[in-house]
Amino acid sequence: MNHAFNENEKDAIYRVIRERRDVRRFKTDALPSSTLEQVLNAAMQAPSVGYSQPWNFILVKDQVIRQKVHEAFRRANEEAKSLFQGERGEKYASLKLEGILDSALNICVTCDRNRFGPAVLGRTCQPDMDLYSTVCAVQNLWLAARCEGIGVGWVSIIKPEELAALMGLPEGVVPIAYLCLGYTEGFAPEPELKTAGWLPQVPFESLIYHDQWGQRSPKD
Amino acid sequence: MNHAFNENEKDAIYRVIRERRDVRRFKTDALPSSTLEQVLNAAMQAPSVGYSQPWNFILVKDQVIRQKVHEAFRRANEEAKSLFQGERGEKYASLKLEGILDSALNICVTCDRNRFGPAVLGRTCQPDMDLYSTVCAVQNLWLAARCEGIGVGWVSIIKPEELAALMGLPEGVVPIAYLCLGYTEGFAPEPELKTAGWLPQVPFESLIYHDQWGQRSPKD
Repeated sequence: MNHAFNENEKDAIYRVIRERRDVRRFKTDALPSSTLEQVLNAAMQAPSVGYSQPWNFILVKDQVIRQKVHEAFRRANEEAKSLFQGERGEKYASLKLEGILDSALNICVTCDRNRFGPAVLGRTCQPDMDLYSTVCAVQNLWLAARCEGIGVGWVSIIKPEELAALMGLPEGVVPIAYLCLGYTEGFAPEPELKTAGWLPQVPFESLIYHDQWGQRSPKD
Repeated sequence: MNHAFNENEKDAIYRVIRERRDVRRFKTDALPSSTLEQVLNAAMQAPSVGYSQPWNFILVKDQVIRQKVHEAFRRANEEAKSLFQGERGEKYASLKLEGILDSALNICVTCDRNRFGPAVLGRTCQPDMDLYSTVCAVQNLWLAARCEGIGVGWVSIIKPEELAALMGLPEGVVPIAYLCLGYTEGFAPEPELKTAGWLPQVPFESLIYHDQWGQRSPKD
Protein backbone atom coordinates (compact mmCIF):
# COMPACT_ATOMS: atom_id res chain seq x y z
CA MET A 1 0.00 0.00 0.00
CA ASN A 2 1.16 3.48 -0.92
CA HIS A 3 0.86 5.96 1.93
CA ALA A 4 1.68 9.05 -0.14
CA PHE A 5 -0.75 11.94 -0.33
CA ASN A 6 -2.23 12.86 -3.72
CA GLU A 7 -0.54 15.46 -5.95
CA ASN A 8 -2.84 18.32 -4.93
CA GLU A 9 -2.25 17.59 -1.27
CA LYS A 10 1.51 17.43 -1.80
CA ASP A 11 1.41 20.75 -3.66
CA ALA A 12 -0.38 22.38 -0.72
CA ILE A 13 2.15 21.03 1.76
CA TYR A 14 5.20 22.07 -0.26
CA ARG A 15 3.55 25.44 -0.87
CA VAL A 16 3.00 26.19 2.82
CA ILE A 17 6.59 25.18 3.60
CA ARG A 18 7.86 27.43 0.78
CA GLU A 19 5.62 30.43 1.51
CA ARG A 20 5.99 30.53 5.31
CA ARG A 21 7.72 33.75 6.34
CA ASP A 22 8.98 35.48 9.44
CA VAL A 23 6.46 38.34 9.56
CA ARG A 24 7.06 41.63 11.35
CA ARG A 25 4.32 43.84 9.87
CA PHE A 26 0.79 43.20 11.01
CA LYS A 27 -2.81 44.34 10.65
CA THR A 28 -4.69 44.82 13.92
CA ASP A 29 -7.67 42.54 13.12
CA ALA A 30 -8.35 40.03 15.90
CA LEU A 31 -7.76 36.31 15.25
CA PRO A 32 -10.96 34.20 15.32
CA SER A 33 -10.80 31.92 18.35
CA SER A 34 -11.68 28.80 16.33
CA THR A 35 -8.79 29.47 13.95
CA LEU A 36 -6.41 30.10 16.82
CA GLU A 37 -7.52 26.84 18.41
CA GLN A 38 -6.77 24.91 15.20
CA VAL A 39 -3.34 26.47 14.97
CA LEU A 40 -2.56 25.61 18.61
CA ASN A 41 -3.88 22.09 18.05
CA ALA A 42 -1.46 21.69 15.15
CA ALA A 43 1.35 22.76 17.46
CA MET A 44 0.37 20.10 20.00
CA GLN A 45 0.52 17.40 17.32
CA ALA A 46 4.28 17.88 17.04
CA PRO A 47 6.58 14.96 17.80
CA SER A 48 7.73 14.98 21.41
CA VAL A 49 10.50 12.95 22.96
CA GLY A 50 9.04 9.99 24.84
CA TYR A 51 5.58 11.53 24.18
CA SER A 52 6.37 14.01 26.94
CA GLN A 53 4.52 16.97 25.36
CA PRO A 54 6.67 19.44 27.31
CA TRP A 55 5.10 22.58 25.81
CA ASN A 56 2.79 25.32 27.10
CA PHE A 57 1.39 28.29 25.23
CA ILE A 58 0.94 31.63 26.99
CA LEU A 59 -1.39 33.82 24.93
CA VAL A 60 -0.31 37.38 25.62
CA LYS A 61 -2.94 40.04 24.85
CA ASP A 62 -2.36 42.39 27.78
CA GLN A 63 -0.82 45.59 26.42
CA VAL A 64 0.96 46.41 29.68
CA ILE A 65 2.85 43.11 29.59
CA ARG A 66 3.55 43.48 25.87
CA GLN A 67 4.94 46.95 26.53
CA LYS A 68 7.36 45.43 29.06
CA VAL A 69 8.37 42.69 26.61
CA HIS A 70 8.92 45.37 24.01
CA GLU A 71 11.17 47.27 26.44
CA ALA A 72 13.18 44.08 26.99
CA PHE A 73 13.50 43.70 23.23
CA ARG A 74 14.59 47.34 22.86
CA ARG A 75 17.34 46.96 25.46
CA ALA A 76 18.63 43.70 23.97
CA ASN A 77 18.50 45.20 20.49
CA GLU A 78 20.60 48.20 21.53
CA GLU A 79 23.29 45.76 22.73
CA ALA A 80 22.97 43.70 19.56
CA LYS A 81 23.32 46.72 17.26
CA SER A 82 26.72 47.51 18.69
CA LEU A 83 27.99 44.12 17.44
CA PHE A 84 27.45 45.09 13.80
CA GLN A 85 29.69 47.90 12.58
CA GLY A 86 29.82 50.32 9.67
CA GLU A 87 27.57 49.57 6.72
CA ARG A 88 26.41 46.38 8.39
CA GLY A 89 25.40 48.32 11.50
CA GLU A 90 23.38 50.76 9.38
CA LYS A 91 21.64 47.90 7.62
CA TYR A 92 20.91 46.22 10.95
CA ALA A 93 19.38 49.43 12.30
CA SER A 94 17.14 49.72 9.22
CA LEU A 95 15.52 46.30 9.71
CA LYS A 96 12.16 45.90 11.45
CA LEU A 97 12.78 42.92 13.71
CA GLU A 98 9.55 42.50 15.68
CA GLY A 99 5.84 43.27 15.84
CA ILE A 100 5.30 42.86 19.59
CA LEU A 101 2.92 45.81 19.99
CA ASP A 102 1.27 45.94 16.58
CA SER A 103 0.37 42.24 16.18
CA ALA A 104 -3.03 40.83 17.20
CA LEU A 105 -1.54 38.38 19.67
CA ASN A 106 1.77 37.36 21.19
CA ILE A 107 2.41 33.74 22.20
CA CYS A 108 5.19 32.64 24.49
CA VAL A 109 5.93 28.95 23.90
CA THR A 110 7.61 27.34 26.89
CA CYS A 111 9.22 24.01 27.73
CA ASP A 112 8.65 22.31 31.09
CA ARG A 113 11.94 20.53 31.71
CA ASN A 114 10.44 18.32 34.41
CA ARG A 115 7.32 17.12 32.62
CA PHE A 116 6.80 13.41 33.19
CA GLY A 117 10.38 13.24 34.52
CA PRO A 118 12.90 12.67 35.87
CA ALA A 119 13.50 9.77 33.43
CA VAL A 120 11.97 10.50 30.03
CA LEU A 121 12.30 7.95 27.22
CA GLY A 122 14.70 9.34 24.62
CA ARG A 123 16.09 12.09 26.87
CA THR A 124 18.36 9.88 28.96
CA CYS A 125 21.53 10.75 27.03
CA GLN A 126 20.27 13.77 25.07
CA PRO A 127 18.61 15.85 27.79
CA ASP A 128 17.85 18.77 25.45
CA MET A 129 15.45 16.71 23.33
CA ASP A 130 12.55 18.34 25.20
CA LEU A 131 13.66 21.76 23.95
CA TYR A 132 13.77 20.37 20.42
CA SER A 133 10.28 18.87 20.76
CA THR A 134 9.00 22.30 21.72
CA VAL A 135 10.66 23.82 18.65
CA CYS A 136 8.87 21.23 16.47
CA ALA A 137 5.61 22.50 17.99
CA VAL A 138 6.59 26.06 17.04
CA GLN A 139 7.24 25.02 13.44
CA ASN A 140 3.87 23.24 13.23
CA LEU A 141 2.16 26.34 14.61
CA TRP A 142 3.99 28.51 12.07
CA LEU A 143 2.91 26.37 9.09
CA ALA A 144 -0.70 26.07 10.27
CA ALA A 145 -0.88 29.84 10.79
CA ARG A 146 0.49 30.43 7.28
CA CYS A 147 -2.25 28.39 5.63
CA GLU A 148 -4.80 30.42 7.61
CA GLY A 149 -3.25 33.61 6.21
CA ILE A 150 -1.84 34.51 9.64
CA GLY A 151 1.70 35.80 9.87
CA VAL A 152 4.07 34.68 12.61
CA GLY A 153 7.32 36.33 13.68
CA TRP A 154 9.78 34.80 16.15
CA VAL A 155 11.43 37.43 18.36
CA SER A 156 14.74 36.12 19.70
CA ILE A 157 16.32 39.46 20.61
CA ILE A 158 15.20 39.33 24.25
CA LYS A 159 17.19 37.98 27.19
CA PRO A 160 15.55 34.68 28.19
CA GLU A 161 15.80 35.44 31.91
CA GLU A 162 13.92 38.73 31.44
CA LEU A 163 11.26 37.00 29.37
CA ALA A 164 10.89 34.24 31.99
CA ALA A 165 10.38 36.88 34.69
CA LEU A 166 7.82 38.81 32.63
CA MET A 167 5.85 35.61 31.92
CA GLY A 168 6.05 34.49 35.57
CA LEU A 169 7.63 31.16 34.63
CA PRO A 170 8.33 28.83 37.56
CA GLU A 171 11.68 27.13 38.14
CA GLY A 172 12.25 24.41 35.53
CA VAL A 173 10.15 26.04 32.82
CA VAL A 174 12.07 27.88 30.09
CA PRO A 175 10.91 30.14 27.27
CA ILE A 176 11.63 28.70 23.82
CA ALA A 177 9.93 31.15 21.47
CA TYR A 178 8.24 34.51 21.75
CA LEU A 179 5.94 34.78 18.74
CA CYS A 180 3.95 37.65 17.25
CA LEU A 181 0.82 36.61 15.33
CA GLY A 182 -1.58 38.51 13.13
CA TYR A 183 -3.02 39.04 9.71
CA THR A 184 -0.69 40.92 7.41
CA GLU A 185 -0.74 42.98 4.23
CA GLY A 186 1.48 40.43 2.58
CA PHE A 187 3.92 37.55 2.83
CA ALA A 188 7.22 38.43 1.22
CA PRO A 189 8.19 36.30 -1.81
CA GLU A 190 11.47 35.31 -0.12
CA PRO A 191 13.09 35.73 3.31
CA GLU A 192 13.52 39.45 4.03
CA LEU A 193 17.15 39.04 5.07
CA LYS A 194 17.89 37.41 1.71
CA THR A 195 16.13 40.20 -0.21
CA ALA A 196 17.89 42.83 1.88
CA GLY A 197 21.25 41.31 0.98
CA TRP A 198 22.03 40.53 4.63
CA LEU A 199 23.19 37.00 3.79
CA PRO A 200 23.07 34.88 0.63
CA GLN A 201 21.18 31.60 0.20
CA VAL A 202 23.49 28.63 0.73
CA PRO A 203 23.36 26.34 -2.35
CA PHE A 204 21.65 22.98 -1.93
CA GLU A 205 24.70 20.93 -2.98
CA SER A 206 27.02 22.49 -0.44
CA LEU A 207 24.73 21.41 2.41
CA ILE A 208 24.68 17.71 1.52
CA TYR A 209 27.32 15.15 2.50
CA HIS A 210 27.47 11.39 2.08
CA ASP A 211 28.23 8.98 4.92
CA GLN A 212 30.75 11.36 6.53
CA TRP A 213 31.16 15.10 7.04
CA GLY A 214 32.96 16.58 4.03
CA GLN A 215 32.29 13.69 1.64
CA ARG A 216 30.71 15.26 -1.44
CA SER A 217 29.56 12.18 -3.32
CA PRO A 218 28.41 8.65 -2.47
CA LYS A 219 31.10 6.01 -2.39
CA ASP A 220 29.56 3.66 -4.93
CA MET B 1 -6.40 40.73 0.50
CA ASN B 2 -6.87 37.36 2.14
CA HIS B 3 -3.68 35.30 2.22
CA ALA B 4 -5.32 32.09 3.48
CA PHE B 5 -5.04 28.89 1.48
CA ASN B 6 -8.23 27.29 0.14
CA GLU B 7 -10.10 24.67 2.17
CA ASN B 8 -8.64 21.68 0.31
CA GLU B 9 -5.13 22.99 0.79
CA LYS B 10 -5.75 23.62 4.50
CA ASP B 11 -7.12 20.09 4.88
CA ALA B 12 -3.95 18.65 3.35
CA ILE B 13 -1.74 20.69 5.66
CA TYR B 14 -3.67 19.82 8.81
CA ARG B 15 -3.75 16.19 7.67
CA VAL B 16 0.02 15.91 7.25
CA ILE B 17 0.57 17.51 10.65
CA ARG B 18 -1.93 15.10 12.23
CA GLU B 19 -0.72 11.94 10.43
CA ARG B 20 3.04 12.44 10.84
CA ARG B 21 4.47 9.68 13.01
CA ASP B 22 7.76 8.60 14.51
CA VAL B 23 8.33 5.46 12.42
CA ARG B 24 10.55 2.56 13.48
CA ARG B 25 9.46 -0.19 11.07
CA PHE B 26 10.59 0.09 7.48
CA LYS B 27 10.48 -1.56 4.09
CA THR B 28 13.80 -1.82 2.32
CA ASP B 29 12.75 -0.13 -0.98
CA ALA B 30 15.15 2.63 -1.99
CA LEU B 31 13.99 6.25 -1.94
CA PRO B 32 13.84 7.86 -5.41
CA SER B 33 16.49 10.57 -5.58
CA SER B 34 14.07 13.20 -6.91
CA THR B 35 11.74 12.62 -3.94
CA LEU B 36 14.63 12.76 -1.50
CA GLU B 37 15.75 16.01 -3.06
CA GLN B 38 12.31 17.55 -2.60
CA VAL B 39 12.22 16.48 1.02
CA LEU B 40 15.68 17.95 1.67
CA ASN B 41 14.67 21.13 -0.14
CA ALA B 42 11.69 21.44 2.19
CA ALA B 43 14.06 21.14 5.13
CA MET B 44 16.22 23.96 3.79
CA GLN B 45 13.18 26.24 3.55
CA ALA B 46 12.89 26.26 7.32
CA PRO B 47 13.19 29.55 9.17
CA SER B 48 16.73 30.20 10.33
CA VAL B 49 17.92 32.81 12.77
CA GLY B 50 19.38 35.77 10.92
CA TYR B 51 19.02 33.69 7.71
CA SER B 52 22.09 31.76 8.86
CA GLN B 53 20.99 28.36 7.44
CA PRO B 54 23.21 26.52 9.92
CA TRP B 55 22.22 23.02 8.81
CA ASN B 56 23.93 20.20 6.92
CA PHE B 57 22.54 16.82 5.98
CA ILE B 58 24.75 13.75 5.99
CA LEU B 59 23.07 10.97 4.01
CA VAL B 60 24.23 7.73 5.57
CA LYS B 61 23.92 4.65 3.37
CA ASP B 62 27.14 2.84 4.26
CA GLN B 63 26.22 -0.27 6.25
CA VAL B 64 29.51 -0.35 8.15
CA ILE B 65 28.92 3.13 9.54
CA ARG B 66 25.29 2.34 10.27
CA GLN B 67 26.41 -0.77 12.15
CA LYS B 68 28.62 1.41 14.33
CA VAL B 69 25.80 3.89 14.93
CA HIS B 70 23.58 0.98 15.87
CA GLU B 71 26.21 -0.22 18.36
CA ALA B 72 26.27 3.27 19.89
CA PHE B 73 22.49 3.13 20.16
CA ARG B 74 22.61 -0.32 21.78
CA ARG B 75 25.06 0.81 24.45
CA ALA B 76 23.10 3.98 25.25
CA ASN B 77 19.87 2.00 25.32
CA GLU B 78 21.28 -0.49 27.85
CA GLU B 79 22.06 2.43 30.16
CA ALA B 80 18.64 3.96 29.52
CA LYS B 81 16.80 0.72 30.30
CA SER B 82 18.23 0.64 33.79
CA LEU B 83 16.50 3.96 34.57
CA PHE B 84 13.04 2.41 34.15
CA GLN B 85 12.17 -0.20 36.77
CA GLY B 86 9.66 -2.99 37.23
CA GLU B 87 6.65 -2.98 34.92
CA ARG B 88 7.90 0.22 33.31
CA GLY B 89 11.25 -1.39 32.60
CA GLU B 90 9.55 -4.36 30.93
CA LYS B 91 7.44 -2.04 28.79
CA TYR B 92 10.54 -0.04 27.84
CA ALA B 93 12.33 -3.20 26.79
CA SER B 94 9.38 -4.25 24.61
CA LEU B 95 9.42 -1.05 22.52
CA LYS B 96 11.15 -0.89 19.13
CA LEU B 97 12.95 2.44 19.32
CA GLU B 98 14.92 2.69 16.08
CA GLY B 99 15.27 1.43 12.51
CA ILE B 100 18.93 2.29 11.91
CA LEU B 101 19.80 -0.87 9.98
CA ASP B 102 16.47 -1.72 8.36
CA SER B 103 15.57 1.72 6.94
CA ALA B 104 16.45 2.78 3.38
CA LEU B 105 18.52 5.74 4.52
CA ASN B 106 19.79 7.42 7.66
CA ILE B 107 20.28 11.18 7.75
CA CYS B 108 22.34 12.99 10.35
CA VAL B 109 21.21 16.63 10.56
CA THR B 110 23.92 18.87 11.99
CA CYS B 111 24.24 22.48 13.11
CA ASP B 112 27.33 24.53 12.30
CA ARG B 113 27.60 26.83 15.29
CA ASN B 114 30.02 29.18 13.51
CA ARG B 115 28.15 29.65 10.25
CA PHE B 116 28.19 33.29 9.20
CA GLY B 117 29.40 34.13 12.73
CA PRO B 118 30.60 35.26 15.14
CA ALA B 119 27.77 37.83 15.32
CA VAL B 120 24.52 36.43 13.90
CA LEU B 121 21.38 38.57 13.84
CA GLY B 122 18.94 37.18 16.42
CA ARG B 123 21.55 35.02 18.20
CA THR B 124 23.24 37.80 20.12
CA CYS B 125 21.40 37.10 23.38
CA GLN B 126 19.92 33.68 22.56
CA PRO B 127 22.94 31.81 21.21
CA ASP B 128 21.04 28.51 20.89
CA MET B 129 18.71 29.88 18.22
CA ASP B 130 20.86 28.14 15.58
CA LEU B 131 20.08 24.77 17.17
CA TYR B 132 16.38 25.64 17.08
CA SER B 133 16.59 26.67 13.41
CA THR B 134 18.04 23.26 12.64
CA VAL B 135 15.19 21.57 14.49
CA CYS B 136 12.70 23.55 12.34
CA ALA B 137 14.45 22.06 9.31
CA VAL B 138 13.99 18.57 10.78
CA GLN B 139 10.27 19.17 11.29
CA ASN B 140 9.88 20.41 7.69
CA LEU B 141 11.72 17.32 6.45
CA TRP B 142 9.47 15.09 8.56
CA LEU B 143 6.25 16.61 7.19
CA ALA B 144 7.45 16.57 3.57
CA ALA B 145 8.50 12.93 3.93
CA ARG B 146 5.09 12.04 5.38
CA CYS B 147 3.22 13.41 2.36
CA GLU B 148 5.52 11.34 0.14
CA GLY B 149 4.57 8.24 2.12
CA ILE B 150 8.06 8.06 3.65
CA GLY B 151 8.37 7.32 7.35
CA VAL B 152 10.88 9.14 9.54
CA GLY B 153 12.10 8.13 12.98
CA TRP B 154 14.28 10.33 15.20
CA VAL B 155 16.81 8.30 17.21
CA SER B 156 17.88 10.25 20.30
CA ILE B 157 19.22 7.33 22.32
CA ILE B 158 22.83 7.83 21.21
CA LYS B 159 25.51 9.84 22.99
CA PRO B 160 26.05 12.99 20.89
CA GLU B 161 29.85 12.82 21.25
CA GLU B 162 29.89 9.26 19.86
CA LEU B 163 27.66 10.28 16.98
CA ALA B 164 29.85 13.30 16.22
CA ALA B 165 32.91 11.05 16.09
CA LEU B 166 31.20 8.48 13.83
CA MET B 167 30.09 11.23 11.43
CA GLY B 168 33.53 12.88 11.48
CA LEU B 169 32.10 16.25 12.56
CA PRO B 170 34.66 19.04 12.91
CA GLU B 171 34.90 21.24 16.00
CA GLY B 172 31.95 23.61 16.19
CA VAL B 173 29.54 21.35 14.32
CA VAL B 174 27.06 19.42 16.47
CA PRO B 175 24.61 16.64 15.64
CA ILE B 176 20.98 17.67 16.15
CA ALA B 177 19.04 14.70 14.83
CA TYR B 178 19.82 11.19 13.64
CA LEU B 179 16.93 10.18 11.39
CA CYS B 180 15.90 6.87 9.83
CA LEU B 181 13.91 7.18 6.59
CA GLY B 182 12.07 4.68 4.50
CA TYR B 183 8.79 3.46 3.12
CA THR B 184 6.74 1.63 5.70
CA GLU B 185 3.87 -0.85 5.97
CA GLY B 186 1.82 1.72 7.78
CA PHE B 187 1.62 4.91 9.77
CA ALA B 188 0.07 4.29 13.18
CA PRO B 189 -3.25 6.08 13.83
CA GLU B 190 -1.78 7.74 16.93
CA PRO B 191 1.63 8.05 18.59
CA GLU B 192 2.86 4.58 19.55
CA LEU B 193 3.77 5.64 23.08
CA LYS B 194 0.20 6.85 23.58
CA THR B 195 -1.28 3.60 22.24
CA ALA B 196 1.13 1.58 24.36
CA GLY B 197 -0.05 3.41 27.47
CA TRP B 198 3.43 4.78 28.13
CA LEU B 199 2.09 8.30 28.77
CA PRO B 200 -1.33 9.91 28.35
CA GLN B 201 -2.18 12.78 26.02
CA VAL B 202 -2.14 16.10 27.87
CA PRO B 203 -5.50 17.88 27.41
CA PHE B 204 -5.52 21.01 25.23
CA GLU B 205 -6.93 23.29 27.94
CA SER B 206 -4.24 22.47 30.48
CA LEU B 207 -1.52 23.61 28.05
CA ILE B 208 -2.94 27.10 27.49
CA TYR B 209 -2.39 30.10 29.73
CA HIS B 210 -3.34 33.75 29.35
CA ASP B 211 -0.87 36.62 29.76
CA GLN B 212 1.01 34.87 32.59
CA TRP B 213 2.03 31.35 33.53
CA GLY B 214 -0.78 29.71 35.52
CA GLN B 215 -3.54 32.11 34.44
CA ARG B 216 -6.32 29.92 33.09
CA SER B 217 -8.61 32.52 31.52
CA PRO B 218 -8.23 35.91 29.88
CA LYS B 219 -8.61 38.90 32.18
CA ASP B 220 -11.42 40.62 30.29
